[in-house]
Amino acid sequence: MIIGLDGDDTLWHSEREFAQTQERYREIISRWADHHTIERRLLDTERRNLEVLGYGVKSFTLAMVETAIEVSDGNIPASEIHEVIALGKELLSHPVELIDGVADTLDTLSRDHTLLLVTKGDLLHQETKLAASGLGELFWRIEIVSEKDVPTYERIMRRHEIERDNFVMVGNSVRSDVLPVLEIGAKAVHVPYHITWELEHAAVDDASFPTISTLRDLVSLVDNWS
Amino acid sequence: MIIGLDGDDTLWHSEREFAQTQERYREIISRWADHHTIERRLLDTERRNLEVLGYGVKSFTLAMVETAIEVSDGNIPASEIHEVIALGKELLSHPVELIDGVADTLDTLSRDHTLLLVTKGDLLHQETKLAASGLGELFWRIEIVSEKDVPTYERIMRRHEIERDNFVMVGNSVRSDVLPVLEIGAKAVHVPYHITWELEHAAVDDASFPTISTLRDLVSLVDNWS
Repeated sequence: MIIGLDGDDTLWHSEREFAQTQERYREIISRWADHHTIERRLLDTERRNLEVLGYGVKSFTLAMVETAIEVSDGNIPASEIHEVIALGKELLSHPVELIDGVADTLDTLSRDHTLLLVTKGDLLHQETKLAASGLGELFWRIEIVSEKDVPTYERIMRRHEIERDNFVMVGNSVRSDVLPVLEIGAKAVHVPYHITWELEHAAVDDASFPTISTLRDLVSLVDNWS
Repeated sequence: MIIGLDGDDTLWHSEREFAQTQERYREIISRWADHHTIERRLLDTERRNLEVLGYGVKSFTLAMVETAIEVSDGNIPASEIHEVIALGKELLSHPVELIDGVADTLDTLSRDHTLLLVTKGDLLHQETKLAASGLGELFWRIEIVSEKDVPTYERIMRRHEIERDNFVMVGNSVRSDVLPVLEIGAKAVHVPYHITWELEHAAVDDASFPTISTLRDLVSLVDNWS
């Protein structure tokens, strides 16, 4: 079958690096606000900016700068803003580290199935991470998208002429990788990551999809469906 | 035949709005440096950031902030940095204005030919502009890419199973829309825009491609080739 795979926090670590960056960010601006306030205000800024700026590290960097200016009431010196931008650039240049077991699992899956990467964020950054991951050759097609919602998945099905019966999406975000895919009538598998970004949280009443603790478990699951 | 069309400054105005934004930016930081210095330093920052940040308004906004901090030796107040970020967000939200004659020309071309949009920049911003342009329905396929070089065009040819003999790329940038396309053995047409971003400048010794002053002239040009 055709297996759609999410990138960030499904194939390679991402939120872990965002969390480290945020910790260093909070240190830089710690005299202007406490930990909790900074977190809340940063999230407010990201949420407010989402429609215009979209996802990814560049948007996150701009949100860190804006939030720093706002929580300091405009008193933060420019040199500290420069440090914040440097944090964002470091995050963009951070080495890609695959999640344990991913390389072997994808190699195994690719023998019997067709792999499609469906990832969201900055175009260049996602391409750079894919190239650095060494996984590029295992994928049939690559889709870097600005949002993972029903219209996006419908467009992907159409463009690649994929039958819904024959498609499963696998990822760490119930909101982005699971719910919209179930809605269009395809299958989805949840592989939780130990950190979930607040804006990816989804309320799930009735978990009508499989959850696996490691991508390795996908092999037998998908073999049962084929 | 299959006609690849660039977006920014080929179908809709873009550099004009960047230029207006830069003018307002120079006013905000005018007491720290003169017009010429600001322009030069901003371009230096953009060039330095290109590999990590890529193209688009978010990268441009981060470059404006960095440059403001640097030319002021860290003395610019945070409130002015906030104004600079607001300028970037306004640029992202700027209404899309089609270049004169584009809507009619694309409508005519789409009757006998297959149109492919090949555009570069922020993923979400390009999608938003395309949607706002009202031209979406005229395109067969959309390619938003992080760089327009030989490997990118080769990938596009492969992915959409396009024969080089049957492809022409049309755009305002000799560097991005013309030279790499000629290099892979397809045709290219240059439609200059009245402003060219410094980083898109290309040295051309021998103009072995047609240049047209308005997209309208493409209709007869392409008809002759078909």
